Amino acid sequence: HHHHIAVLAGDGIGPEVMAEALKVLDAVSAKFGFTVSRKEAFVGGAGIDHCGKALPEETIRACEEADAVLFGSVGGPKWEHLPANEQPERGALLPLRKHFGLYANLRPGVCLPALTHASPIKNELIEGGFDILCVRELTGGLYFGQPRFREEEGDDEVVVDTMRYHKSEMVRIAKVAFEAARGRRKRVTSVDKANVLTNSLLWRETMTEVARDYPDVELLHMYVDNAAMQLVRNPRQFDVLVTENLFGDILSDEMAMICGSLGMLPSASLCQGAKDNGLFFGLYEPSGGSAPDIAGKGIANPIAQILSLSMLLRYSLGEKKAADAIDSAVRSVIDQGYRTGDLATGAAGEIRVNTAEMGNAVVAAL
Amino acid sequence: HHHHIAVLAGDGIGPEVMAEALKVLDAVSAKFGFTVSRKEAFVGGAGIDHCGKALPEETIRACEEADAVLFGSVGGPKWEHLPANEQPERGALLPLRKHFGLYANLRPGVCLPALTHASPIKNELIEGGFDILCVRELTGGLYFGQPRFREEEGDDEVVVDTMRYHKSEMVRIAKVAFEAARGRRKRVTSVDKANVLTNSLLWRETMTEVARDYPDVELLHMYVDNAAMQLVRNPRQFDVLVTENLFGDILSDEMAMICGSLGMLPSASLCQGAKDNGLFFGLYEPSGGSAPDIAGKGIANPIAQILSLSMLLRYSLGEKKAADAIDSAVRSVIDQGYRTGDLATGAAGEIRVNTAEMGNAVVAAL
Ligand SMILES: [Mg+2]
Ligand SMILES: [Mg+2]
Repeated sequence: HHHHIAVLAGDGIGPEVMAEALKVLDAVSAKFGFTVSRKEAFVGGAGIDHCGKALPEETIRACEEADAVLFGSVGGPKWEHLPANEQPERGALLPLRKHFGLYANLRPGVCLPALTHASPIKNELIEGGFDILCVRELTGGLYFGQPRFREEEGDDEVVVDTMRYHKSEMVRIAKVAFEAARGRRKRVTSVDKANVLTNSLLWRETMTEVARDYPDVELLHMYVDNAAMQLVRNPRQFDVLVTENLFGDILSDEMAMICGSLGMLPSASLCQGAKDNGLFFGLYEPSGGSAPDIAGKGIANPIAQILSLSMLLRYSLGEKKAADAIDSAVRSVIDQGYRTGDLATGAAGEIRVNTAEMGNAVVAAL
Repeated sequence: HHHHIAVLAGDGIGPEVMAEALKVLDAVSAKFGFTVSRKEAFVGGAGIDHCGKALPEETIRACEEADAVLFGSVGGPKWEHLPANEQPERGALLPLRKHFGLYANLRPGVCLPALTHASPIKNELIEGGFDILCVRELTGGLYFGQPRFREEEGDDEVVVDTMRYHKSEMVRIAKVAFEAARGRRKRVTSVDKANVLTNSLLWRETMTEVARDYPDVELLHMYVDNAAMQLVRNPRQFDVLVTENLFGDILSDEMAMICGSLGMLPSASLCQGAKDNGLFFGLYEPSGGSAPDIAGKGIANPIAQILSLSMLLRYSLGEKKAADAIDSAVRSVIDQGYRTGDLATGAAGEIRVNTAEMGNAVVAAL
């Protein structure tokens, strides 16, 4: 197989951790017999510096021509004086999502067995770690629905936002969740507020309908307030969580916090791919930011970027074996004790490494 | 001072734990020199059995004539065959809230220093326990806003719910939060999503406006997704949390779970009192349910009911010293090692007690 990806390293630690992800890409493509041509392009502050804007036209074109986009991170103090809409994050990430209509936000919430100490949850509740995938609808609901307005003045002011979904938006996000669950532990927990919201009635009906096409996947329903409790009480009960935009915003952040190690968490924003083969076009990026405070020092944790590559291989290129191999290699280096500064605790058996050494360790473990 | 309250013990463990709360009321009223006349009335399953409905007219009248309502719990298998709207919970609690327009839901999230082991959060993050008060707007927003509808059919179906607030609804809930903070650690954290929602813009402006009348209270703003993270990461940072209905539904449950001991958590639903003296009319009840599995055995934990009484004294009767005394007495009996079954761990120094013994211990500690 031959694939094309766009590589947008961006700012801060972006280029450093991207270099390690590309090392890993070289290794898995050689091992599993596929090729990936990469088009590198400027984005964020780097886009502003080289091309005058956070999302240059040629960067958009590179993304359009690719099967997927591997994104680093953008932003930093150098560009904070700019108007909000021209700044790296607002000026690059949001327009990219909008340009491609990326409606599915996937965030793994993984706590590896060797890192449960870093989670705020008591060890006995998460022994053996946990592995959740949160699938959040990203382009509908209360954050985008019309009408939204303020009317009247002073003490009589009234304010309105609208939670609006078209059934087709629910169907397509459901499919993403069920497809993902098929490659995992085959359980989807759909989160709604069906005891109160009209939206949730259609949501629940739609999830149940789509589930019929996935008889091998179990579907459970849970109210959003209960989900917020269950994530804390017993995160191991979840495989794939699927929910609408606002609920997903809240729950995915709660879930990430419960994992404990933000430097380990990738994310993906997907839309339907060009071919009807179960693959998605998508933008893959670490959950963390550009970390300008440690940029250029070569000490950042590259694992979130490496796991972003793994997601890209799985969901956009269909190279599942390569993705599984990367996930296993990451687990293995953590089990062996390799720790960048953000993960280190000083415990016996830890091997302190920098960015490149961690990347090399993952390659070696493949 | 002379006060009037309605006592609605309800079903299941309700009457058992209510008996202990009333013992405590006798003790504090004698000690602090006030009197409280109590009108007992049937509610829930007891209402159905004695008067044919979950919320009898005479019960409503008893509540109308009172300064506050001390509520036990309702429901149980005996009444589960009834139509949903006639069942104890739907037929009593919701109509009561609606009849009195109880717009402010107060839920303390308290983890006592001696009970941090019961929290799912790691001990080192909550050493010394924590004490949050969540103030949730209960009658507005997405759960009640119009329009709400489903339109078109099949694959073209569209669904709409509306998040709508009148400024006056925001002002009055803000006042509840600031008044409460004055009697506590004088910090209000207002939770919104002002980077996305029009509702949250007016919410944030209104909180800032009301804060001007409370120069002794600090006001902080936090996004709802961040709040969901911060509750897990560092609950000790919060004093009073105030937020709209939907966000409060999610966050208050997450907070309760983080406390670890549901049998310790009271709640209150308030509206403006008859006099303009900073006091509220309200319904006070344990957060937990009627626990039919242990009803009649005399082993239920009465502390949530006793702390509901403390909230009633504080917010509806203005008997702050009595409320403080009860809160201290509860802390003291827990520190001394008294444990009902739900709290017991078998650790050395624990004194296993039943419902009445726990009530007696609180009275003795007053
Ligand atoms: Mg968020
Ligand atoms: Mg709730």
